[in-house]
Amino acid sequence: TEGASGILHISMSTVSPETSRRMAQIHSGRGDRFVSAPVFGRPEAAAARKLWICQSGEADAKAQVRPVLEAMGQGIFDFGEDPGAANVVKLAGNFLIASAIEAMAEAFTLGEKNGVERGRMAEMFARTLFACPIYLNYGRLIAEQGYDKVGFSLPLGLKDMQLLQATAVTSKVPMPFAGVVRDRLVAAMAKGREGLDWTGFALGVSEDAGLG
Amino acid sequence: TEGASGILHISMSTVSPETSRRMAQIHSGRGDRFVSAPVFGRPEAAAARKLWICQSGEADAKAQVRPVLEAMGQGIFDFGEDPGAANVVKLAGNFLIASAIEAMAEAFTLGEKNGVERGRMAEMFARTLFACPIYLNYGRLIAEQGYDKVGFSLPLGLKDMQLLQATAVTSKVPMPFAGVVRDRLVAAMAKGREGLDWTGFALGVSEDAGLG
Repeated sequence: TEGASGILHISMSTVSPETSRRMAQIHSGRGDRFVSAPVFGRPEAAAARKLWICQSGEADAKAQVRPVLEAMGQGIFDFGEDPGAANVVKLAGNFLIASAIEAMAEAFTLGEKNGVERGRMAEMFARTLFACPIYLNYGRLIAEQGYDKVGFSLPLGLKDMQLLQATAVTSKVPMPFAGVVRDRLVAAMAKGREGLDWTGFALGVSEDAGLG
Repeated sequence: TEGASGILHISMSTVSPETSRRMAQIHSGRGDRFVSAPVFGRPEAAAARKLWICQSGEADAKAQVRPVLEAMGQGIFDFGEDPGAANVVKLAGNFLIASAIEAMAEAFTLGEKNGVERGRMAEMFARTLFACPIYLNYGRLIAEQGYDKVGFSLPLGLKDMQLLQATAVTSKVPMPFAGVVRDRLVAAMAKGREGLDWTGFALGVSEDAGLG
């Protein structure tokens, strides 16, 4: 096509589905292509080819980027042609993580006020009903309350929950848990905690119960 | 002791910590003993010796009931001498499950309204970040919305969330997620859904988003 630059843009950031849809349209208008491929995993996971990658977009473009994604991921999940779909899944995943953080913080705080050690409760659930990475790793963090070792920063967590809520409004889905978590993050910012890991919003759960 | 009947009472029901503490006191006053040992797992799990058992109470009494619990469980977790402690952990566990149900229902509904198949999202998370029994089994249920196959009834779920909230008030712990989940269960009862599995409160999440 006239003006086509042959660009294939792979967007791996956590952006809104709306942004991906607009980017895809702009690229398409120029004869270029766009694949949305947001990831779960930290830089170490990328280095170890252990990322979980969501993707969506035009089939041909996805086929072409496949080797690139395979070099970084241990699993690639396809969500169809809508370039925004992969971003919906990524935001939903961060929301599930944030909800697990809040739920564990509430549960552990209830335990603590009843003389049950936080770490003991975390350990039990991470070995039984919730024997999976998120509950194991975040559960230990929330039990130990060592929020100053930053894996994913608190302001980035807030950014993602804001993108999630904007998407929830656009697509008309009330999400009460998202509101609770978003307000926890806002309160943490108000208390000057932007330098903490995003799990640091769990401090507010303890404080509301008169602890810490 | 005068009037001692030598009774050793093992309470495996999901009751409030306060009930266990009172029961222990009553038994103790008679020279009898009381062990709190609530379980995670359905009847099939008990038959297969696959229950997860929490226990708390007097050390001697716990040592004596150990063989009985071992005949039913694949793991026994001790939470000390306070007879109410095991019940706090059991209620906290059901709360973590209920919170995971609500979070998944919100996430899957957001997906559905953006053209992402519920089952596809459930499958991805159950194979990656949340590869554990609760997200795998309940995730599939919530994706398929087959709430009429009752594993744990909706009114029992409400009972447990009420016990949890009463404990949260007694021990002064605000738990916003518990409030959301309790109201979902109350709404489900109001809509005549007492015959459904307790995951059936997820229907309310879809309905709030204008679906089904």
